[in-house]
Amino acid sequence: MAFKAPSMLGPKFPWLLWAYACCCSISFCGRVVVWPTDASHWINVKVLLQELVLRGHEVTVLVPSSNLLINYQDTSSPFTFEVLQVPFSQETLDASMEDFLNFWMNEASNLFPWEIMWTMKEQLEVFTNMSKQTCDTLVMNSHLIAKLQQAKFDVLIADPLSVGGELVAEILEIPFIYSFRFSDGNVVERLCGGLPSPPSYVPASTMGLTHQMSFMERLQNFLFYIFTDLFFVKFWRDEWDGYYSNVLGKAAEILQRQLATSEIWLIRTYWDFEFPRPFLPNFEFVGGLHCQPAKPLPKVSQLHSAIGCSGEHGIIVFTLGSMVYNLSDEKSNVIAKALSQLPQKVLWRYKGKKPETLGSNTKIYDWIPQNDLLGHPLTKAFITHGGTNGLYEAIYHGIPMVGIPMFADQHDNIAHMVAKGAAVQVDFNTMKTQDLADALNTVIYNSTYKENALKLSKIQHDQPVKPLDRAVFWIEFVMRHKGAKHLRPAAHHLTWYQYHSLDVLAFLFTCTATIVFILFKCSASGNYTDCLGANGRLES
Amino acid sequence: MAFKAPSMLGPKFPWLLWAYACCCSISFCGRVVVWPTDASHWINVKVLLQELVLRGHEVTVLVPSSNLLINYQDTSSPFTFEVLQVPFSQETLDASMEDFLNFWMNEASNLFPWEIMWTMKEQLEVFTNMSKQTCDTLVMNSHLIAKLQQAKFDVLIADPLSVGGELVAEILEIPFIYSFRFSDGNVVERLCGGLPSPPSYVPASTMGLTHQMSFMERLQNFLFYIFTDLFFVKFWRDEWDGYYSNVLGKAAEILQRQLATSEIWLIRTYWDFEFPRPFLPNFEFVGGLHCQPAKPLPKVSQLHSAIGCSGEHGIIVFTLGSMVYNLSDEKSNVIAKALSQLPQKVLWRYKGKKPETLGSNTKIYDWIPQNDLLGHPLTKAFITHGGTNGLYEAIYHGIPMVGIPMFADQHDNIAHMVAKGAAVQVDFNTMKTQDLADALNTVIYNSTYKENALKLSKIQHDQPVKPLDRAVFWIEFVMRHKGAKHLRPAAHHLTWYQYHSLDVLAFLFTCTATIVFILFKCSASGNYTDCLGANGRLES
Repeated sequence: MAFKAPSMLGPKFPWLLWAYACCCSISFCGRVVVWPTDASHWINVKVLLQELVLRGHEVTVLVPSSNLLINYQDTSSPFTFEVLQVPFSQETLDASMEDFLNFWMNEASNLFPWEIMWTMKEQLEVFTNMSKQTCDTLVMNSHLIAKLQQAKFDVLIADPLSVGGELVAEILEIPFIYSFRFSDGNVVERLCGGLPSPPSYVPASTMGLTHQMSFMERLQNFLFYIFTDLFFVKFWRDEWDGYYSNVLGKAAEILQRQLATSEIWLIRTYWDFEFPRPFLPNFEFVGGLHCQPAKPLPKVSQLHSAIGCSGEHGIIVFTLGSMVYNLSDEKSNVIAKALSQLPQKVLWRYKGKKPETLGSNTKIYDWIPQNDLLGHPLTKAFITHGGTNGLYEAIYHGIPMVGIPMFADQHDNIAHMVAKGAAVQVDFNTMKTQDLADALNTVIYNSTYKENALKLSKIQHDQPVKPLDRAVFWIEFVMRHKGAKHLRPAAHHLTWYQYHSLDVLAFLFTCTATIVFILFKCSASGNYTDCLGANGRLES
Repeated sequence: MAFKAPSMLGPKFPWLLWAYACCCSISFCGRVVVWPTDASHWINVKVLLQELVLRGHEVTVLVPSSNLLINYQDTSSPFTFEVLQVPFSQETLDASMEDFLNFWMNEASNLFPWEIMWTMKEQLEVFTNMSKQTCDTLVMNSHLIAKLQQAKFDVLIADPLSVGGELVAEILEIPFIYSFRFSDGNVVERLCGGLPSPPSYVPASTMGLTHQMSFMERLQNFLFYIFTDLFFVKFWRDEWDGYYSNVLGKAAEILQRQLATSEIWLIRTYWDFEFPRPFLPNFEFVGGLHCQPAKPLPKVSQLHSAIGCSGEHGIIVFTLGSMVYNLSDEKSNVIAKALSQLPQKVLWRYKGKKPETLGSNTKIYDWIPQNDLLGHPLTKAFITHGGTNGLYEAIYHGIPMVGIPMFADQHDNIAHMVAKGAAVQVDFNTMKTQDLADALNTVIYNSTYKENALKLSKIQHDQPVKPLDRAVFWIEFVMRHKGAKHLRPAAHHLTWYQYHSLDVLAFLFTCTATIVFILFKCSASGNYTDCLGANGRLES
């Protein structure tokens, strides 16, 4: 492996950057191993890994034999796949995901909070068991470990929500980097990453709050921080600590400490999307790294024809993401009816049963080139479930949105876009035909939504280095320097009460209380000198 | 003025960056106005302003007729100077600075803390009065204000320690940016900038502590935070609030609020120097922006000859900065004697009386090309007072240091370098000949110091965009977008007790106390049902 530190590049010496870029594929050749992250997370990480391959690095992905979106049988893939033969079948995994989606789309809204929490705990157990089984296939396979050690990887890339990456990095004795979107209440970022998050203006993720909160919202946010901390400790950290301790032969709190040793946290958002908040030097916000200019649509395609006859009204792009395949008849008819009332052509990615109320202006497709459509000059609006990937493509191209969030970070994502004036939210569970039609008319015909979407787009485009290049830079930095310890805060060496200076406060309180007590005793006995004995010492 | 948003540039499309850079001087032409910052601050900011001029911007510097280092009579300067005719003379300013230096170099170490504090307060009053007189020359000159308004500046650059910039920006109705190194205890950054600083691992500036503190150090740090907060409010904020209120006709706390509206804080340090700590998205760490590769020394110069005969032992570069011109005879002789014991050639920048103990290996110069000497391959060590500018040149070139800090941030700066293993500190007041000789021998002959200095150098050089380009980027960003509001945290809209969630805690405490009180009352009356009246309502 031959590394060459990049020169300090800038607009003043563009030829240096040019020469450096030309040399990249020759002089850089690192070995990257990836702990699997699935579903929409994989869609994002894949773009980063493809870029690493383009720059001359070797990428090996550890992939469970049963998974959602990682096609390890694709012979044209630029990655080397190391398949982990997990004991659960593809059907079991699909059924678990179906249950998960069904609960959040159809059941959760009718339940009490404690019922939701209980189901969350049960769902977490299901996925935790699968994660442990995935880990087992590696940590109990000494042959595979030896093979991976011999490969002499330079860095491991993981997602903290897909537990195990930090364990593998420890076993292989290599530094690791996280690619990360969010955890419930920011609890992983806060407790493991050390990310400071004042609950007064940093809304807990999944709450759908903004950075400007009323007293009641701040109270709600504060309590949710506590709730998620307890949930994390009880149902996640404690659950994994035993497993990690067994594997590594170390003491408790091992998961939290392991996660804290991530060299860099590549966060999949940026300040076009995020509310400004404190962060640490080893956190890099690379949201939009997967975005790219739209490619022209093939001239003979159905899509091209559909757009061609949209006229001055333009088109609307509609998708509920890579995980939601179908809707109830009632819901799909409500949506289709609303869409049929619009003068725009609607291009809907949907695999479910064709709704009866589908209008002539609406075309359904199994798959659409989402980024190319969002970048089309005739696109007027984007109807989205609020997944970060799609939402970033809308930001990139400056398209206003109608959000129909369902689960995970989707409520949060749409709340951000609503607060920034680039989206209108519609409630998935209570939505009526008119609600959706009104929302679409608002974002299309009230020009402030388009203006605000374009503002966000400008922020995304106007960065000193584009997100994909920044992400690659820090991965290569970690490979070059075998880590980035100079960016890791000393907070990780403190206990929680030391971090919050509670021991200092307790000491100061004790000193003050002692002084007050002595003064009180003296004043009670009438005279300060009464407190002192003949030799001037304090007497009780 | 014609702005063009830069493309998203990166190693993948170097030709884009090249094309962009080539177009810079044609398409960018902003108007920048600078509120004066003096002494070593000016040395640093001047480099940034020169770069702005090189990129086609017009730079106007508002400069007091009496100042320390801003030579507004230099006809070759690339800046336009607008001279503010201040009522204090050059002699008065020089004498005040002489008093300031004399106090910190010769008197402070023999005084009690409260005596030091009292003198600090008196010194602050002297400089505050001069600052107010400087502000007066502008805010009371409607002709000048009109002239500046007509110039239609796009951005103002200031240093928060040189108060007034934010006031001028408000009058001219333009966004402003800070270039900043530090304030006592980080108080300006914390209270005005909203920078989160947990006292458990973020050492207050000027304390000389590191990020890893014992309990007593954390206690000391915590108390210093409180002390500096009170000092700031009492002797700085309150002092300026009246002045700002008079000028702007607004309510109190005006200074703190004004400072909070800075679009970007360009901090003159980086993570090679800083201990990792939380920061905000509108803080950009651009330390080392003034550093550049060493130029070869002229072959016929005295310096070139001196270095030429240094042989294998190499040279030592020695300066106490741009403000310290001479030392007491005793001190200069202690230093000269220590230097005479070394086999290296010593190049000493010093304007004072030639010490009697000066060795033949030591040459004294009025001025030295410090950066070129530190970048010379024969340079073995740097003796420095610990000013940030010089220290960054040593980091840039990977030279180990002996620090003799005297005042301001110098103790802090050297403490950072000592903690990072690239320097040894010597106490200016108690230093003996052998102490200095030992310190120099340590950093020269114990190879870990050189290795650590080179590590810091690598961190400085290995950045995605070099500091000067990042600083220019954000200034141009603010000009392009008329601000950077999307980076400003909502913390600025909260009171201190809201920020720390104290109102939420008080509410929760009150609720808990009420419940406990009711339960206690019930249990005291023997039976819960006794607390309830016949209608089930709670009775007292």
